[in-house]
Amino acid sequence: MGSLSLDMPMKPLDPHAIAGDSQAIQDFLAEYYRNVDKYPVRAADLEPGRVRKLLPDAAPEHGEPMDHILEDVRREILPGLTHWQSPRFFAFFPANASSAGLAAEMLSVGLNVVPFVWAASPAAAELESVVVDWMARLFGLPRRFLFFGGGGGVLQGSTCEAVVCTLAAARDRALGRLGHEAIARLVVYASDQTHATFQKGARLVGIKPSNFRVIRTSAASGYGLTAEAVRAAVDRDVGLGLVPLYLCATVGTTGLGAVDPVREIGEEARRHGMWVHLDAAYAGSAAICREFQDYLDGAELADSVSMNPHKWFLTNMDCCCLWVARPRDLISALSTDPEYLKNVGADDDVAGKPAAIDYKDWQISMSRRFRAIKLWVILRRYGAAGMRAHIRRHVAAAKWFEQRVAADERFEVVVPRTFSLVCFRLAPRVGRDDDDATNHVNRDLLAAVNASGRAFMTHFVVDGKFVIRLAVGGASTELQHVMEVWDLLQGKAVEVLQHYQT
Amino acid sequence: MGSLSLDMPMKPLDPHAIAGDSQAIQDFLAEYYRNVDKYPVRAADLEPGRVRKLLPDAAPEHGEPMDHILEDVRREILPGLTHWQSPRFFAFFPANASSAGLAAEMLSVGLNVVPFVWAASPAAAELESVVVDWMARLFGLPRRFLFFGGGGGVLQGSTCEAVVCTLAAARDRALGRLGHEAIARLVVYASDQTHATFQKGARLVGIKPSNFRVIRTSAASGYGLTAEAVRAAVDRDVGLGLVPLYLCATVGTTGLGAVDPVREIGEEARRHGMWVHLDAAYAGSAAICREFQDYLDGAELADSVSMNPHKWFLTNMDCCCLWVARPRDLISALSTDPEYLKNVGADDDVAGKPAAIDYKDWQISMSRRFRAIKLWVILRRYGAAGMRAHIRRHVAAAKWFEQRVAADERFEVVVPRTFSLVCFRLAPRVGRDDDDATNHVNRDLLAAVNASGRAFMTHFVVDGKFVIRLAVGGASTELQHVMEVWDLLQGKAVEVLQHYQT
Repeated sequence: MGSLSLDMPMKPLDPHAIAGDSQAIQDFLAEYYRNVDKYPVRAADLEPGRVRKLLPDAAPEHGEPMDHILEDVRREILPGLTHWQSPRFFAFFPANASSAGLAAEMLSVGLNVVPFVWAASPAAAELESVVVDWMARLFGLPRRFLFFGGGGGVLQGSTCEAVVCTLAAARDRALGRLGHEAIARLVVYASDQTHATFQKGARLVGIKPSNFRVIRTSAASGYGLTAEAVRAAVDRDVGLGLVPLYLCATVGTTGLGAVDPVREIGEEARRHGMWVHLDAAYAGSAAICREFQDYLDGAELADSVSMNPHKWFLTNMDCCCLWVARPRDLISALSTDPEYLKNVGADDDVAGKPAAIDYKDWQISMSRRFRAIKLWVILRRYGAAGMRAHIRRHVAAAKWFEQRVAADERFEVVVPRTFSLVCFRLAPRVGRDDDDATNHVNRDLLAAVNASGRAFMTHFVVDGKFVIRLAVGGASTELQHVMEVWDLLQGKAVEVLQHYQT
Repeated sequence: MGSLSLDMPMKPLDPHAIAGDSQAIQDFLAEYYRNVDKYPVRAADLEPGRVRKLLPDAAPEHGEPMDHILEDVRREILPGLTHWQSPRFFAFFPANASSAGLAAEMLSVGLNVVPFVWAASPAAAELESVVVDWMARLFGLPRRFLFFGGGGGVLQGSTCEAVVCTLAAARDRALGRLGHEAIARLVVYASDQTHATFQKGARLVGIKPSNFRVIRTSAASGYGLTAEAVRAAVDRDVGLGLVPLYLCATVGTTGLGAVDPVREIGEEARRHGMWVHLDAAYAGSAAICREFQDYLDGAELADSVSMNPHKWFLTNMDCCCLWVARPRDLISALSTDPEYLKNVGADDDVAGKPAAIDYKDWQISMSRRFRAIKLWVILRRYGAAGMRAHIRRHVAAAKWFEQRVAADERFEVVVPRTFSLVCFRLAPRVGRDDDDATNHVNRDLLAAVNASGRAFMTHFVVDGKFVIRLAVGGASTELQHVMEVWDLLQGKAVEVLQHYQT
């Protein structure tokens, strides 16, 4: 592990160097996870530019031992991180890590093969086709999304990629019929609860920004879309000579965990030949439990489905499963066939055989990592039963928290919980319904909790109400941590309410 | 490391579990790298569907110990992999791995933070801004691409992502002026040597396929673009009322390692207000050596530059540096600002401060990995001097090979080598100039070499000639391996030529 010089031949893949550098990180991470609960979840004294100022302006001329580098990580980097793996991280959605996920990513990164075409690593491409079928079965997806059933899946990095790819497939299918000039007449639909990724993706593929329809939802439908609202929006556009292209349905929205009724709105969209995408980025993981599979009812009406194992499925960043019912649509929009990717050798005649999947034609990028082995190792290490237990303990903890909130007259549950996300706030004071004042109190409450370093939560705004989100799902989050955050919230609530009463 | 059951509470981040699972992989990888040179670089008896058939149709119900899983990796997966880390892998471009790269990725994946907005992990965002500045300095990029100089960089996953993002930025800048309907009049330019990623990216962002201009190159310019050819193409389009949007210049093309003269064509493009992107995916790494920096001359005329440390810079998959001169253009095209990403707490007033970079607005996806710490650890572990030595030993080995080829009258160098890629073939037989026959012989030669399992190379076709590519650059590839592949080629050439003479 000494420093490197020009005199010494570099052996970057020497087994001793691999063992030495890896061992240093392994020890570092064991220490990190022993202490992660002690760090402020989010550093309280944040100030932009502070870390940048600590670091030199240029890379070092000479190599350094790993231990020196890790010393700087401890001193300069760790204090400025938000600790997503703290058991007290309840912000955004969880980004699960696990011992098997870390190990599996080491294996993927260690082998470092690039399965962009089948022949570039046949076993990697085939393992991917197997593992996406495994996942589809675990979630009870319709057979049409399995390779086994004529569809198929791919592992990408994020929902945004999946949305871009399926939007491009839908767009090119439509433009193949209408001509490219019709691009300005294509319209896409989602709700006011749909993730911002959708508008970003639609814009990326060239949909006219004024043709994004953001359909209003309300408490009456639990902030899910309704068939009536979709129909009204689509009929209006058809009347204007526009072309309905793509509807994004969400099971478990980011703000509130709301659920769009897939069957109802899928039937509506189908009437107009629209592409229906089902985004289950967060809540899809819950569908490994039978009691949550009904939320995917109607999935057979969708053209594509995606979910992120890197959220709540013990899979370290990054991994997004995308399934399509008709791979040909996706491949038509994304394929390339340059000379330097044709293969010469024993497999001259395999091109076009269905089992020889060139995954570069299923995604944005040509190059790609060996994500399949990551997800495969995780599924084998924990098994379906282990995953169900992981999901259920968080749902149970969220349920416990929701009950406490509901039973405390100072608080209210703003939207009933479906999965492991609780949306709540300090209730308006009796006899008043001043949302501005209530919002201020809640904003202060959230700021006080986050400033304590003992928990990190984020917020949402719905119908003018500032809502605090407790997203349970961290890999090491137990009921005990949820109980402690409830204590913390009650304590800070007393302080904040006192402040407003004086 | 025993199997998991519902009776046992799951502790996916228990330090003992982390140590146990990681150690199993560490041992596995040490063994793999001790033996990697003994595997056939590419399995010879490939048959699509073989691996798929070995694996069960469904995920296991119960978890398994890591050792069992790794036993299956050895038996079912390894024999079907193409071993990109073999020192005898000369195909495509290299995908470097290294002990520091593996360790650094472990660290990134182990911390598993998601620095999509500054506040989601301030130190991660700031480290990224530092490390892209370090890289720009190492390659001698103009100051305008550094944060330090008003520009800035981001770490993405691939060149294709970088191309999509910059195309979207260029497109939206133009459409902001011309209105969205003008999208069908936008024209993009590249050469017949530009990577297929470019046409894929242009199509993704909605450029009309008939508006991709593929400008012919020839041996006379070393298969680089010329200002004259660019001017002729652009003038023709302007005459037709079309709008020149974007020119992709490449330093080190995929097929032949050709170099577009950035200054000449950059000036031409600038005359029409086009966005110029400089793609140095592979050869950019060489610019860490002073003797290769002149190939980037004229980079100050570009709007964006990208290169992939995951190719030839000892960085395990994946990592692409993208620099832009005007971050505002990129952010305008890619930003989103939903309520659930606004931050509440001590940093309420940091939004908009330049040091608080929200990297989600610099890329396609919202979520992202902590790639900065990977590249930062690698740069510190090997230092600039170590990286230069790494590049130079491959360039020297490629030069050695090129000289042997040139000195052997049976062979010819088809395009003079610039970096570490040698493009050669068996020469046409004396007195004949039948390219079809010569192509057959070379195709058979490449197939014979690849079938031997002792090396893996790929090919290209230029001016009707089938060319064999020797891409030197594997992290463990030494001169000795290049010498051995030259012996192998000579032996197979004798066999193949005998076959054709009988």
